[in-house]
Amino acid sequence: MFDTGFSKQLIVLMDEMEANEDLKVAVFESANPDFFMAHVELLNVADFPKGTGKTGLSISWPDIAKRLEQAPFVSIASIRGRARGLGSEFAQAFDIRFASKEKARLAQVEIGIGSFPGGGGMERLHLLTGRSRALEIILSGNDYDAETAALYGWVNRAIADDELDAFVDTFAKRIDSFDKKSLASIKAIMNERTQLPTNEEILSTQVKFFESLQEPEAKQRIKTLFEKGLQQNGDLELNLADRI
Amino acid sequence: MFDTGFSKQLIVLMDEMEANEDLKVAVFESANPDFFMAHVELLNVADFPKGTGKTGLSISWPDIAKRLEQAPFVSIASIRGRARGLGSEFAQAFDIRFASKEKARLAQVEIGIGSFPGGGGMERLHLLTGRSRALEIILSGNDYDAETAALYGWVNRAIADDELDAFVDTFAKRIDSFDKKSLASIKAIMNERTQLPTNEEILSTQVKFFESLQEPEAKQRIKTLFEKGLQQNGDLELNLADRI
Amino acid sequence: MFDTGFSKQLIVLMDEMEANEDLKVAVFESANPDFFMAHVELLNVADFPKGTGKTGLSISWPDIAKRLEQAPFVSIASIRGRARGLGSEFAQAFDIRFASKEKARLAQVEIGIGSFPGGGGMERLHLLTGRSRALEIILSGNDYDAETAALYGWVNRAIADDELDAFVDTFAKRIDSFDKKSLASIKAIMNERTQLPTNEEILSTQVKFFESLQEPEAKQRIKTLFEKGLQQNGDLELNLADRI
Repeated sequence: MFDTGFSKQLIVLMDEMEANEDLKVAVFESANPDFFMAHVELLNVADFPKGTGKTGLSISWPDIAKRLEQAPFVSIASIRGRARGLGSEFAQAFDIRFASKEKARLAQVEIGIGSFPGGGGMERLHLLTGRSRALEIILSGNDYDAETAALYGWVNRAIADDELDAFVDTFAKRIDSFDKKSLASIKAIMNERTQLPTNEEILSTQVKFFESLQEPEAKQRIKTLFEKGLQQNGDLELNLADRI
Repeated sequence: MFDTGFSKQLIVLMDEMEANEDLKVAVFESANPDFFMAHVELLNVADFPKGTGKTGLSISWPDIAKRLEQAPFVSIASIRGRARGLGSEFAQAFDIRFASKEKARLAQVEIGIGSFPGGGGMERLHLLTGRSRALEIILSGNDYDAETAALYGWVNRAIADDELDAFVDTFAKRIDSFDKKSLASIKAIMNERTQLPTNEEILSTQVKFFESLQEPEAKQRIKTLFEKGLQQNGDLELNLADRI
Repeated sequence: MFDTGFSKQLIVLMDEMEANEDLKVAVFESANPDFFMAHVELLNVADFPKGTGKTGLSISWPDIAKRLEQAPFVSIASIRGRARGLGSEFAQAFDIRFASKEKARLAQVEIGIGSFPGGGGMERLHLLTGRSRALEIILSGNDYDAETAALYGWVNRAIADDELDAFVDTFAKRIDSFDKKSLASIKAIMNERTQLPTNEEILSTQVKFFESLQEPEAKQRIKTLFEKGLQQNGDLELNLADRI
């Protein structure tokens, strides 16, 4: 889960990666085979780190997402298990996404609490999938397997689960064998050539997202989900898209 | 066929849907398994409703297409049978498209009469498929099955024909179970974030489309097609893309 | 290989095609089944035609790529064998790309010499594949088969090798049966509606590309590749993406 602890550790990690001038490629994967990242923690919102980061966006997540995008190193998400809500938005901020054909499940489940993606999903998902498929995903809150996600462009490619780790490892080592300056130039030129979310857009959606959580319907939906087992190990979290 | 009667009924239907503040999702499907929508009626063009609608675009179709796009409810096309010419453009104006794997056939056949899509296809198809595939589709006038259309992004997904109705029904009911205000917010934010056709573009192509129909080559091609069975039940309409 | 001879012949061919007012469709294919186009010649760079073409871009390639894009006829690449580096960029400049399912291999191998695509690939590939997949392709230098390339949008479609020639021939003859003026209108309108590379972008990347070749690391990588058989018939060129 993207909780306060993870949020704080992520700032330390991002600072370290940016400070490492030799870093060419970073791979993010989960130690828990059932979850790449469940979703954002909803109980202790007040404890999340606050303030504005060096990008002009809120810390930690919106700031870090933009730092990943602008970084001179290559970021890769290796997705096994569930990546829902902010878990999916987390994956979207990486340069490249590979997903387990059998075990990845992606979803934007925010509609289930009477809301919508507030951590970049309204800005980044359509850049990967186009408007129509982004609407389908966000309006339905459904789970998507890796092959459908690859057809939609949400992930780069679906890889057989027993090959995923070796595939990603080979891919990352290959990039690591190339010239750092060239890798950085490619990202810098590509960032100039392609549409990227603006700070204004990210901030506007973020404000609307927090407002939506104050609506009576959202409060009721969140309450009901907690009663059914939200943020606990078990059926509800494993099958969250089916249960909303 | 998109004829004068359908055009007039569509205005009534759209007015009703906009007036219904509880409406969350609308599914369009065809009662004729061979045709989602054949194409536009070419004989009685003078009888079509005329004037400018509330969007600033011509009634009925260009105005209604934009109203669907801007509507606070979700629109879904369930495509079984042929969707050619304006039938394809009709489908493109919905938020989401699902198509029968075995029975959907999509085409922009206007090149067969020496013309090009005049009802939004020059503005919307490339937003779904990209420039290269939109050119392939419009320049060739070929039929495309649902799986190729899904690969291209023309439809969201191809669904086995015997599962399509249940799939779309489940999908629509799921959306209907969510909060209306959130659904509307998602569409409104997405419309701000993504490229949509401008009125100027739609009008410019519409003018060129009607001009192209006055060319001697277009008149000859249309005459020949009517002699072969255009707008009649039978082989020509069933296999129009092959016959042009 | 895109060498000085090919570069000069291409100018003559392009002039002829533009002068032919009846030309509706041009298909480019390779007589060598192993290579659609290997890559750019690196030894005799000084002998390439120089100057600025009618589009305001350098001759021959950047100018010709833009002329193909703006041409009133339809251009189709039929890709069998390897299309790497400028070979891939060459294919990207056509309106439509079909590729052999078994025999096409596409790659942007420039990272292998400490560089990046300098002939339009930084401007055109992401328009076909989106940012994330373009980054994957350019940062890795990997070979891609036709089905993965079609999933990514790099080519329009993968066609079984024993059907490719007949498919492309039928497709081209079909377009040739239509009205020239309508075909030209479709391309002209589509060029207005879609994002295309600007001269400023193409020129900016071209300058950075030639600068990158002067870096010590690039010189060393190029020297090593020539020692291993670059630009000679044999294993290195056949398996270039694996060898970089």
